[in-house]
Amino acid sequence: MRSKAPRIQDVAEAAGVSTATVSRALSDPERVSEATRRTVLAAVERTGYSANRAARMLRTRRAGAVLVLVPNLGNPFFSQILSGIEAVFAAAGTSVLIADTQEQPIGPGQIARYISGGHADGLISLDGAIAPETLADEAQLPEGAPLVFACEWSAAGRFPSIRSDNADGVAQAVDHLVGLGHRRIGMVGGPDGNVLSAAREGAFRDALARHRIAPRDDWFVPGDFSLEAGRQAARRLLEMTDRPTAVFCAADQMALGLIGELRSRGASVPEELSVVGFDDIEIAEHVWPGLTTIRQRRHDLGRRAAEILLARLAAPEPARAETTILPVALVVRGSTGPAPGGR
Amino acid sequence: MRSKAPRIQDVAEAAGVSTATVSRALSDPERVSEATRRTVLAAVERTGYSANRAARMLRTRRAGAVLVLVPNLGNPFFSQILSGIEAVFAAAGTSVLIADTQEQPIGPGQIARYISGGHADGLISLDGAIAPETLADEAQLPEGAPLVFACEWSAAGRFPSIRSDNADGVAQAVDHLVGLGHRRIGMVGGPDGNVLSAAREGAFRDALARHRIAPRDDWFVPGDFSLEAGRQAARRLLEMTDRPTAVFCAADQMALGLIGELRSRGASVPEELSVVGFDDIEIAEHVWPGLTTIRQRRHDLGRRAAEILLARLAAPEPARAETTILPVALVVRGSTGPAPGGR
Repeated sequence: MRSKAPRIQDVAEAAGVSTATVSRALSDPERVSEATRRTVLAAVERTGYSANRAARMLRTRRAGAVLVLVPNLGNPFFSQILSGIEAVFAAAGTSVLIADTQEQPIGPGQIARYISGGHADGLISLDGAIAPETLADEAQLPEGAPLVFACEWSAAGRFPSIRSDNADGVAQAVDHLVGLGHRRIGMVGGPDGNVLSAAREGAFRDALARHRIAPRDDWFVPGDFSLEAGRQAARRLLEMTDRPTAVFCAADQMALGLIGELRSRGASVPEELSVVGFDDIEIAEHVWPGLTTIRQRRHDLGRRAAEILLARLAAPEPARAETTILPVALVVRGSTGPAPGGR
Repeated sequence: MRSKAPRIQDVAEAAGVSTATVSRALSDPERVSEATRRTVLAAVERTGYSANRAARMLRTRRAGAVLVLVPNLGNPFFSQILSGIEAVFAAAGTSVLIADTQEQPIGPGQIARYISGGHADGLISLDGAIAPETLADEAQLPEGAPLVFACEWSAAGRFPSIRSDNADGVAQAVDHLVGLGHRRIGMVGGPDGNVLSAAREGAFRDALARHRIAPRDDWFVPGDFSLEAGRQAARRLLEMTDRPTAVFCAADQMALGLIGELRSRGASVPEELSVVGFDDIEIAEHVWPGLTTIRQRRHDLGRRAAEILLARLAAPEPARAETTILPVALVVRGSTGPAPGGR
């Protein structure tokens, strides 16, 4: 309908006031004089400026809240990331609102509703099932929008992202098992279509190749990061006549479910099967045997994601979006041991 | 500045259009013709109507979202309640936003910001640290406001609440232990000032009294519902020369931390100490030994809390606020056994 949308500067110029006064007249009219208000409204009308677009922008600016998309609050992996995010925004006086996407492909308009509904000034996605393109598309977010991916996604400079060094973590897990004499190593993977599943499975195959171990497809058990998936994987493993001596699980929850099921069926960990997880969720050190796993600096991850978003919110012209990768570390506990029979 | 604020009807009348058209012109100007937009803006100017107040009002009315206050997302207890809440609101086309209050006394204005900031049409609090009076006061919510307590609080008819039958749950836990021959029973409690801590501790003392067992204050170990609190409680118990043979923990997380620490120090569960939790969080059945605990119908609790809120949102004159109490059930697993030595 209009070829070029007038900007707030055009309104300010037409009214002979500052852009701050235009903002104030539109968003908080009681704070300007009646004369100024009328002048600004007249300029809004004259320039064809969308008062509502202004209001939306201003409102967005002072929602005083950011939104965090979490794939599944039932997975305790996310809580410490959230606490890192919350620590930063609490200090900035900004509320953190969380939406559980329930590992569902994001519904049409759902994100658009959050953002253009004025619930949030910015967004951090922890959801490996939501690709940057989907998010930008549905929320109609322009390049440079206040959007940070704190998961495996990176969006080629369009949005900043931060994640743990998954490839290195998986490599450390496999190196640890090989160092204990294991060469028959299986894996319990994440859900299809999740960027994290793909990354960890790829890294697992690479790590095996580095040790000249051929991957065995029958030892790859699909999962979905849940305790129950680990439990089912245990049953699958126990049914195999030719079994691995160690498994790498793409998430601690699956590793814990797997160990619990193995032990409830009388199989011993690590004597019969060594198990490595990934994440180092809080309970990993509280179970017995403790879970050997890859520690992600989750609080840091959250804190830094929040800082990146804050910087984006403050900058009129955000810098080129970068990908930040945080180091991970192997934590050896009781769930891994020497390969049986020196195979 | 103005004695009586003009209403959207005044603008509609001045512009000779419907109030719906005024709304559209202000909120979504691309959907009306340029001429209509200008007519409405002129009427806004003429009447002295605050376009921003309109936008705020409209936004509030169609936030299309409810807010859930959770004390600590790190405790997996809450995730299934949230999934119950989300199931109901997803069907109703309403977004669920979650705020983690981090078990902090709620900050002044924090809730007010959520509600009057237009982020949410209604609110469910799962936080036992936030009393109804505080919430109503800070958010300046009138009686009958769309507010539901899904925790121990009940507000004498002012707001609806729903909770598990804590007293019965604790009684079942103690009965189970007494049935196994235990009479030396300790407790690991929740944080001070939390309504749930008080309820479970009171019920514990009542249950002991019913069995004519005198409570031992030195066997009451304070905690905060966390894994780490359970771990510390284990250390306290192991230091005692005169020790209980069983402990009731006011939350599964504490029971799991306690068992993990006991086992890592070579103490056997349940042979040396029987442990009962409360909640039946998902992992309780996946650890070994499985945790004997009190199952709360968490998904149901969330679902019903959401239904109560939906009904409140729909009713112009909400019915008197009632308290709904859901039954709980003892789940016996491996962490409890007969009292040693037949004491």
